[in-house]
Amino acid sequence: MRAADKVLPEATLGRLTLYLRVLDSLAAEGTETVSSEVLAEASGVNSAILRKDLSLLGTFGRRGVGYEVGVLAGFISGTLGLDRDWRVAIVGAGNLGRALAGYGGFRGNGFRLVALLDQSPELIGRRFADLDVRDAGELETLLPADAVNMAVLAVPGAAAQALCERVVAAGVRNILNFAPVVLQVPPGVQVRKVDMARELQILAYHAGHAGQGGPPGP
Amino acid sequence: MRAADKVLPEATLGRLTLYLRVLDSLAAEGTETVSSEVLAEASGVNSAILRKDLSLLGTFGRRGVGYEVGVLAGFISGTLGLDRDWRVAIVGAGNLGRALAGYGGFRGNGFRLVALLDQSPELIGRRFADLDVRDAGELETLLPADAVNMAVLAVPGAAAQALCERVVAAGVRNILNFAPVVLQVPPGVQVRKVDMARELQILAYHAGHAGQGGPPGP
Repeated sequence: MRAADKVLPEATLGRLTLYLRVLDSLAAEGTETVSSEVLAEASGVNSAILRKDLSLLGTFGRRGVGYEVGVLAGFISGTLGLDRDWRVAIVGAGNLGRALAGYGGFRGNGFRLVALLDQSPELIGRRFADLDVRDAGELETLLPADAVNMAVLAVPGAAAQALCERVVAAGVRNILNFAPVVLQVPPGVQVRKVDMARELQILAYHAGHAGQGGPPGP
Repeated sequence: MRAADKVLPEATLGRLTLYLRVLDSLAAEGTETVSSEVLAEASGVNSAILRKDLSLLGTFGRRGVGYEVGVLAGFISGTLGLDRDWRVAIVGAGNLGRALAGYGGFRGNGFRLVALLDQSPELIGRRFADLDVRDAGELETLLPADAVNMAVLAVPGAAAQALCERVVAAGVRNILNFAPVVLQVPPGVQVRKVDMARELQILAYHAGHAGQGGPPGP
């Protein structure tokens, strides 16, 4: 059963990605089954919460056996939509764009990094992480040619909205935004924002509440 | 009233940081009051949700007047604990560490970036974003000397746990982890994880559910 008919809570989604990473490691080691306790511990999550998350997906471990590693990993991948072919372009090849290009998590598990773009003449044509930096001035042709369906914006805040509009006009409907601005997009376009300052601020908040509510969730 | 006696939901915390950024921009432009509708729109949040978030803090706008920009910004800062003096060290001066060091959001609003460390001889002594890279091999003395109380780990996964233990042994209780691993820490240490792969995966999930539950929250 795929839980395609309801939208899962953000917190559950975040934890599913943790379980998936642990399951991938276990599979790589040749482990075939795992108990909810072991999976929870390795994910840094309470095992009751893990069992609840997985029951939301409609999957259950067997008493005394636990979960089959490969089956559960496939199930979570399917739920997250990672069985689709995600073709990712990074727009912006500064320090952040290059860090993201070199980051293993942006490849594999359904994601393929297919393009790295920048508008700076000093960067265009240089090669990072097996990709040649191409001219962001031509993204209207480059993105459709590479069948890009997910764009990562790693550009300064002042440039982000205009680039976002061009990326959307080029047919990309899914955007991961690292620029410190709220992007305005038409309906049907998904934006997810990664905000470093926000993470610091939330950490500061939890630091002030240490011991009251446990550590912040993953 | 400071909402110091209860732990706010993660989603509310995330939105508070958005409101704070918009309020800071408004204050910089000299705007003195703002309606919940305008603040919500600029934050990319539904105005009913904004009013509910702010009521959780115990603060309310006045009908026909709205919120005083400076007062509300100060109130949110206080709630988030940004009125403390956060002294931040970035451990790891690769592309990601340098991107973070150059990122404006890691300075100001209660945060001061005071140290950038790496163990690579090629990086030690180089200067990025007004900071000299110092030897991570000496973090046991460097972090206390700089009164660091928040560390950002921008290191490869394989190095993260060992560095984390050294940072904790050096007295730092608050860690923002960019490495793709779950860190094990003693009680009383707050870890917040920023996981690029997770953001991609959650975006993929929402892409598959577009139109069912609205765009993913900020």
